[in-house]
Amino acid sequence: MISTKISPRTLRQLGIRADILRSVSAMAMETPTREDALTTKPLFSVTPACERNQDELSVKIGRGFEQRHVGPGPREQRAMLETLGFTTIDELIDQTVPESIRLRGNLQIADAMTEAEMREEFERIAKKNEPFTSFIGMGYHNCFTPGPILRDVLMNPGWHTQYSPYQAEISQGRLQSLLNFQTMVSDLTGLPVANSSLLDEATAACESLSLMMNGTKGKRNKVLVDSKCHPQTIACLQTRAGNKNIDVLVIQKKEMAEVMDKKTVGVIVQYPDTEGNMNDISELVNCVHDNGGLVSMATDLLALSIIKSPGELNADVAFGSSQRLGIPMYLGGPAAAFFATRTDFARQVPGRIVGVSKDVNGKQALRLSLQAREQHIRREKATSNVCTAQALLANATAMWGVYHGPEGMVEIAESIHHAALVVAHGAQLAGHKVVTENFFDTMKIDVGEEKAIILKKAHQARINLRDYNNESCIGIALDDTVTRDQIDMLLLILGSPKMVADLDEMDLDDIDKNSIASSNFVRKTSFMEHEVFKMVRSELELVRYIKELERSDLSMVHSMIPLGSCTMKLNASSELEYLSMPEFTNSHPFAPEWQTRGWKQIFNELENDLAEITGYDKVSLQPNSGAQGEYAGLAAINAYHKSNGDKRGICLIPTSAHGTNPASATMAGLKVKAVKVNSDGSINLDSLKGELHKHQGNVSSIMVTYPSTFGVFDEDISDICGLVHDVGGQVYLDGANLNAQMGLSRPGKYGADVSHLNLHKTFAIPHGGGGPGAGPIGVRAHLAPFLPSHPVMPGSNHKTSFGSVSAAPYGNAGVLPISWSMIKMLGPEGLRHSSEIAILNANYMRKRLDGYYQVLYTGSHGMCAHEFIIDLRPFKKTCGIGALDVAKRLMDYGFHAPTMSWPVPDTLMIEPTESEAKAELDRYCDALISIREEIAAIENGYVSKVDNVLKNAPHTMESVLFGDWDHSYTRKKATFPAPWQHNGNKFWPTSSRLDDTYGDRNLICSCPPMSSYK
Amino acid sequence: MISTKISPRTLRQLGIRADILRSVSAMAMETPTREDALTTKPLFSVTPACERNQDELSVKIGRGFEQRHVGPGPREQRAMLETLGFTTIDELIDQTVPESIRLRGNLQIADAMTEAEMREEFERIAKKNEPFTSFIGMGYHNCFTPGPILRDVLMNPGWHTQYSPYQAEISQGRLQSLLNFQTMVSDLTGLPVANSSLLDEATAACESLSLMMNGTKGKRNKVLVDSKCHPQTIACLQTRAGNKNIDVLVIQKKEMAEVMDKKTVGVIVQYPDTEGNMNDISELVNCVHDNGGLVSMATDLLALSIIKSPGELNADVAFGSSQRLGIPMYLGGPAAAFFATRTDFARQVPGRIVGVSKDVNGKQALRLSLQAREQHIRREKATSNVCTAQALLANATAMWGVYHGPEGMVEIAESIHHAALVVAHGAQLAGHKVVTENFFDTMKIDVGEEKAIILKKAHQARINLRDYNNESCIGIALDDTVTRDQIDMLLLILGSPKMVADLDEMDLDDIDKNSIASSNFVRKTSFMEHEVFKMVRSELELVRYIKELERSDLSMVHSMIPLGSCTMKLNASSELEYLSMPEFTNSHPFAPEWQTRGWKQIFNELENDLAEITGYDKVSLQPNSGAQGEYAGLAAINAYHKSNGDKRGICLIPTSAHGTNPASATMAGLKVKAVKVNSDGSINLDSLKGELHKHQGNVSSIMVTYPSTFGVFDEDISDICGLVHDVGGQVYLDGANLNAQMGLSRPGKYGADVSHLNLHKTFAIPHGGGGPGAGPIGVRAHLAPFLPSHPVMPGSNHKTSFGSVSAAPYGNAGVLPISWSMIKMLGPEGLRHSSEIAILNANYMRKRLDGYYQVLYTGSHGMCAHEFIIDLRPFKKTCGIGALDVAKRLMDYGFHAPTMSWPVPDTLMIEPTESEAKAELDRYCDALISIREEIAAIENGYVSKVDNVLKNAPHTMESVLFGDWDHSYTRKKATFPAPWQHNGNKFWPTSSRLDDTYGDRNLICSCPPMSSYK
Repeated sequence: MISTKISPRTLRQLGIRADILRSVSAMAMETPTREDALTTKPLFSVTPACERNQDELSVKIGRGFEQRHVGPGPREQRAMLETLGFTTIDELIDQTVPESIRLRGNLQIADAMTEAEMREEFERIAKKNEPFTSFIGMGYHNCFTPGPILRDVLMNPGWHTQYSPYQAEISQGRLQSLLNFQTMVSDLTGLPVANSSLLDEATAACESLSLMMNGTKGKRNKVLVDSKCHPQTIACLQTRAGNKNIDVLVIQKKEMAEVMDKKTVGVIVQYPDTEGNMNDISELVNCVHDNGGLVSMATDLLALSIIKSPGELNADVAFGSSQRLGIPMYLGGPAAAFFATRTDFARQVPGRIVGVSKDVNGKQALRLSLQAREQHIRREKATSNVCTAQALLANATAMWGVYHGPEGMVEIAESIHHAALVVAHGAQLAGHKVVTENFFDTMKIDVGEEKAIILKKAHQARINLRDYNNESCIGIALDDTVTRDQIDMLLLILGSPKMVADLDEMDLDDIDKNSIASSNFVRKTSFMEHEVFKMVRSELELVRYIKELERSDLSMVHSMIPLGSCTMKLNASSELEYLSMPEFTNSHPFAPEWQTRGWKQIFNELENDLAEITGYDKVSLQPNSGAQGEYAGLAAINAYHKSNGDKRGICLIPTSAHGTNPASATMAGLKVKAVKVNSDGSINLDSLKGELHKHQGNVSSIMVTYPSTFGVFDEDISDICGLVHDVGGQVYLDGANLNAQMGLSRPGKYGADVSHLNLHKTFAIPHGGGGPGAGPIGVRAHLAPFLPSHPVMPGSNHKTSFGSVSAAPYGNAGVLPISWSMIKMLGPEGLRHSSEIAILNANYMRKRLDGYYQVLYTGSHGMCAHEFIIDLRPFKKTCGIGALDVAKRLMDYGFHAPTMSWPVPDTLMIEPTESEAKAELDRYCDALISIREEIAAIENGYVSKVDNVLKNAPHTMESVLFGDWDHSYTRKKATFPAPWQHNGNKFWPTSSRLDDTYGDRNLICSCPPMSSYK
Repeated sequence: MISTKISPRTLRQLGIRADILRSVSAMAMETPTREDALTTKPLFSVTPACERNQDELSVKIGRGFEQRHVGPGPREQRAMLETLGFTTIDELIDQTVPESIRLRGNLQIADAMTEAEMREEFERIAKKNEPFTSFIGMGYHNCFTPGPILRDVLMNPGWHTQYSPYQAEISQGRLQSLLNFQTMVSDLTGLPVANSSLLDEATAACESLSLMMNGTKGKRNKVLVDSKCHPQTIACLQTRAGNKNIDVLVIQKKEMAEVMDKKTVGVIVQYPDTEGNMNDISELVNCVHDNGGLVSMATDLLALSIIKSPGELNADVAFGSSQRLGIPMYLGGPAAAFFATRTDFARQVPGRIVGVSKDVNGKQALRLSLQAREQHIRREKATSNVCTAQALLANATAMWGVYHGPEGMVEIAESIHHAALVVAHGAQLAGHKVVTENFFDTMKIDVGEEKAIILKKAHQARINLRDYNNESCIGIALDDTVTRDQIDMLLLILGSPKMVADLDEMDLDDIDKNSIASSNFVRKTSFMEHEVFKMVRSELELVRYIKELERSDLSMVHSMIPLGSCTMKLNASSELEYLSMPEFTNSHPFAPEWQTRGWKQIFNELENDLAEITGYDKVSLQPNSGAQGEYAGLAAINAYHKSNGDKRGICLIPTSAHGTNPASATMAGLKVKAVKVNSDGSINLDSLKGELHKHQGNVSSIMVTYPSTFGVFDEDISDICGLVHDVGGQVYLDGANLNAQMGLSRPGKYGADVSHLNLHKTFAIPHGGGGPGAGPIGVRAHLAPFLPSHPVMPGSNHKTSFGSVSAAPYGNAGVLPISWSMIKMLGPEGLRHSSEIAILNANYMRKRLDGYYQVLYTGSHGMCAHEFIIDLRPFKKTCGIGALDVAKRLMDYGFHAPTMSWPVPDTLMIEPTESEAKAELDRYCDALISIREEIAAIENGYVSKVDNVLKNAPHTMESVLFGDWDHSYTRKKATFPAPWQHNGNKFWPTSSRLDDTYGDRNLICSCPPMSSYK
């Protein structure tokens, strides 16, 4: 596109006409608005165009994105509609989506861009981000992402399109990598139990608070928080603690012993702290423990490679962000937070823990341990929202660890430390006071009256420093990208009389004295001693290791993953191309706003588009997972009621709801009351009315999922909203199933007050094997004042906001452009069409499976929405086959199971999404039908109930190649059951069925010795 | 790096010192010179730095590239040296590389950059390329590369690190894709036999001339070439014909019939021609055929989707470039040229042909057909250099075809055509004369006196048009990236009174009249009807198809590929990151020089660095393959002799030479005379002296490979050069084995006059499964005037140059930055170290295999160079096992065979390269030793000579899973013979051993019906 390159003057020289000129001038405006988003694109579109010309000319040469995103082509759609007895898709939708909530007319969002236009748009927007070098620190550091990790992990669909590793037999690759991550974290923190990641450092702090509350005895009502924690950590703690009946005292470490008592759950301190300082906290730790409290430490894994670990300091919990170990900053996220603790708290650990177990043949294999803690099982009793992880980033970080090994890490850490020592020395030579006494890479410097000039010089050198407002101090945090030139530049900026080359022996002696090596903080214990951190040094070895693990995992590059409620759709390459652009990778979340205009344009447009799609008035992008979105939505409702002087503590939740709902409500300090559902999955209005009446004046809200978790469009939804509003309650509509509604119906317009949107489901952010996700919330106008804000980058609603839910102002900012570009490339018709085809695909599969399996719930016309449930309970009685057996047998066919035993035990919930083509849907149906025949053979007594293809599934290479074959069926039947399977597309499960109880009984959550693998 | 962002003024404001300022000023110079390359990098390096500081500070934080590129770490190197009886690597090198030719001291190239610096350097250099939109045409068009093709084919090591598919059983994926390419080409051209790609359109034209000469009867001495062929096509034809005793008459098509006679081999015409015109050539075709000649057509596959095919026009050969089908322009290459002809010329087709055959079990499988034509077998009788293909690009283009299908192609072609019709109409409305009568997308317009102003307007709009020098004409060639805005912009530039939106019914009627649909050229025959072009439309389907084929192929991401003489080393991700940057992808090779300054900087630096590494005075980057390099080098020698008034026609070639050598010499019009080699592989000096004497005064040159093709450093190399020089001959040193010499010895300094360098071997360009490559030549000063030039972008030596060898001025320009960055990141020490480790790795393997296999040749101290040969001939006698059996058995171990039966029949030549780590070398040695034991079991009579793991290798999934197992060994022994093999790293050959003769006897070189696959 040449348009943006041409100045109005150039156009005049070209003899361009006035009307065109006007459109160009309009484009020159810098601040993007909603209206701009709707009108900017075509340079000449302001001139009304002759309709016929437009058609004839085929303005967009090449094929649109929609046909790449949507699986079935027109021919296939016709065939599928015919199977269902329809001639047009409109007929299907009319029979599926209730008339009362239908959106008529198109969404008011910009017309679809082509993929080629999007590629240019990303380039154009990238240029609006000013690539300053940020030495701000505060939890975000520049770092170098090794090429193979960027290309072969982060940008590789073989790694980023996997589902969470619940089906362990086809997930050993990423389970191994996550175990590597846990081993790194455990070794570096010196604490034996680590999880496989959390969302960010600030929410990890909140999780540590929960653990401390659960892990201490007696009634305790306050926690002491280090005032030198990062401000966003403190803000999130304050927000979350608000609902926990616990006081957060933000004070200095040295003041803590004074106020410590038996009512204190413990302390949360930072090490090195936000200003870079390391303190000796041994006395404090003793004091806390003497009072029965716990010590939680925010820390930095890179620093820990050369300083004493929290474990050595007797801390009980360590957490922090691992971003600087190879993950670009991406304006604040995503990156993997880590969390480690003592063995006795293993069952209180938030998030997923990968554990070592064995399969039925006794072979060592990995799985997610202690799943009983998770919220889909524990519901409101869950201690945290376990789905919230950053698996892809944890994997990338684990690979970074494998690539560098302990000695590489130490080399990097020492280099950075030495650079920091030189800068500090220069600052002192320049007459400044280095406030930070013991530092690793970050220092606070009191520069007195020179602050303004120093900041100006830094600006001229295109460097961002931390500005301690209201103090005469600046902060400098160095990192592994810093060059010799930059060190000299920092010395120049500080006014040091000496450059690096001028340093003499005396200088170096001075510098040495201040080093960690000369201090009490020096680390003397080893870490990452396991073979896995020593076997790879060259790029070829790393690439082969990445690929070897990738090959163990089934992902979207193999076959469809039709997980009900998880919406595993296409993650288009065109949506991901910006991920390696330096204008996006190097953005610090606290860089001045004007340096990130490209990001802001994307955020503005995404907020506006999401508001239009959902019918809400305002959207916040801060929540960095669906669960965070739920929490934020409920927190906004709480704040709203409070602003009205209303105290309302009850949240109504239908019994069919996803476990995250009650867990979030509990987290938001609400008491959960269940509402019954009818046998068709719809909400029982009598039960609802009863509860509303019972809790009159105290109903804060209702949480409903729509279409329901049973995959049905409830006809009563508007009435339900009305009933709740009538008693002064608010309607929280879970956006998990928005994929059935885009362009068809809008929650904000049919009665809901707030929804979170799972961008990692409906809006194409890759699942990543369990994160990153993004859970923005949309609200109606009356809730807008209460949306999240941020302590460092406050929004306009800062005074009324309920607080912060994520460490970064825009949460997982780095993945938001994916959803933005998906919407831009689909446009209004493409989005509607996507939902229509999602519904068509689901109904086509439902119809094809009809007669083989019982479909549990459908709407009034017999249609499901975008997903449906098949019932496997009968087979338990007829022949002892359960959902687990079918799920494992699907692996032999090369498929991932649908959602299992949720929301109804012993069922499968299938959601094909719009991105799967008819041929793939047919293959999946064929597999399920073939499995039904295998079940029938057992039912009919032709095959043993004990030794059959289902009970023995999945079948591994070993099981068919090594040793004798003493089954009643053939090797071929076991491993190549479908006619379309062949050499090139056979996916081999690498483990036989896992022994779940063994792993939970014998928790091992770091890498076992290599010898144990054989 | 902030350095380039800072103006001297800013630095002054920062109080920077004068000496630093000077270095910054020096950097501001725009024209890069050799000296710059040596000094630019560190901003402050001009200030002499205290040595101790440098060490202490560890200026380059993070680990250098060398340790990622080189496999064995220091510990492993020590262990390997110990195995060989050395303590230092210098000792090994002293015993390997003859003292007489050793380079002492470092190469004078810039110090190594880190990978992080290279990432920034690429960004910086990219910005020096001005991204104008080029509507120049002339064989190069903008196009949109679909995301999955860019990410999952071109940039995916699973596709670009494969070797040529000679081992068919582990190459079915890319063989299928290449067969798809052939099917596309065959269908679109209407000619039944297509090959799997050639280098570019111009060299394809030369190949068509060869075919015409071989395919016609009688003595014929001229060819008629359409003056409307692209100028680079004409130039290459003229250059090549110079050695073929054939006159090239460049005339207009309408004049051809007049001069056609029985002495004419035929005509080469272009359709649509370089100016965009389509002519009715039916009479011409008849005339040519009546005279016993042949018709060869340069053409455009995209146009052919809507215009009559060459086959329908009775042409005998069709060729051209397929670049616009999804491959970025990359300043002229690489892209896949295509070549198709009639069935009766199948055996004269140049290049590789994928054919359908079957395996020993009768299952359909693909392989390279008719290999007996290839130069490694036919030597000087080969009709062309068959290695020269662009497999990776052919694969990408095939995927483009699979993604778009015939209807997608037509849609794109028609859209472009309509856009062109509108522009032509606008030009006429503006009063210009559209010279091109029948066009598809390209037109020549006579704009009279307005030419200067039109070109200026275009410049202001950042658009490049074709400038017909010496005519009042401009050319416009549209493509599938053209937008509505750009069409309006072109109308504005031309001065059209109407924009697109102003066109009325009458305009459209006018436009319709000129369309192809209303002409005789309209295509009425179908194409790409095969299922493979209809099964994929969505991105998920494409990604899964790409991945499915990828999984069938063994590549470097699985294990080492130690092909002697092919140097399959690391292709680092950091070397490839620029491949998706728009500043590199969108460059037209004939864009004005000032728009491609970034490219030119890379070329200048690469030429200088290569000259330094080889010891030559001047380098030309034009040859786009090793064979082209050989030809260019010999052509330069020819021109040199000619300039001296010397007619010398003999080229001496040792009998051990690679077949490409004699084939190239023949192509260069030289008569090949063999020189004997000694039993140790060294050149027999007596034989050499004899030949020199015998052909006194007529010896043009000698071609030697060094180290020899036997993997040995010949001690006599300087003497050999001297002997040849003494009789006035030139020494051509084949650079295939330069990987053993970087930083250790330099051909230009020990006697050679010219070498080609295989950048795709020594300098890290990925093999691509058979291209792209690059074969620059280095020459000593006396040959420099004769280096290649280019008709459109002439070099300074244009008057003395021997001509052109590639279509584009810099050949496969698009891959040259890979080699440039590899050299920059290794630096002088890293390059030398690479060669040293390549020698260490080879000798370590040699030593480990010692006692199990006979190593055929070593140097005077018992050392091999960077590769060695093991002898399998004894086993033929003892138990009937040959090299083929060992090669196939290696597949069961998960390995690709070494080079087989070359240069000695029934041997294996192993070249591990420096990039393989010790563990991988050990695994490969273990596999070979284990196979040796398997052979011993046959020799000893324990195992049958007919039914054993070697004869039945490779073993497929089918063979072990389907049906009974009636072999004397276990399934496990067959498929998991090595202890380190496990589920996750098992590579399965997808075919049993191929039946080679069947495929050659029954040539099928396009996709067979799907039904035949079962």
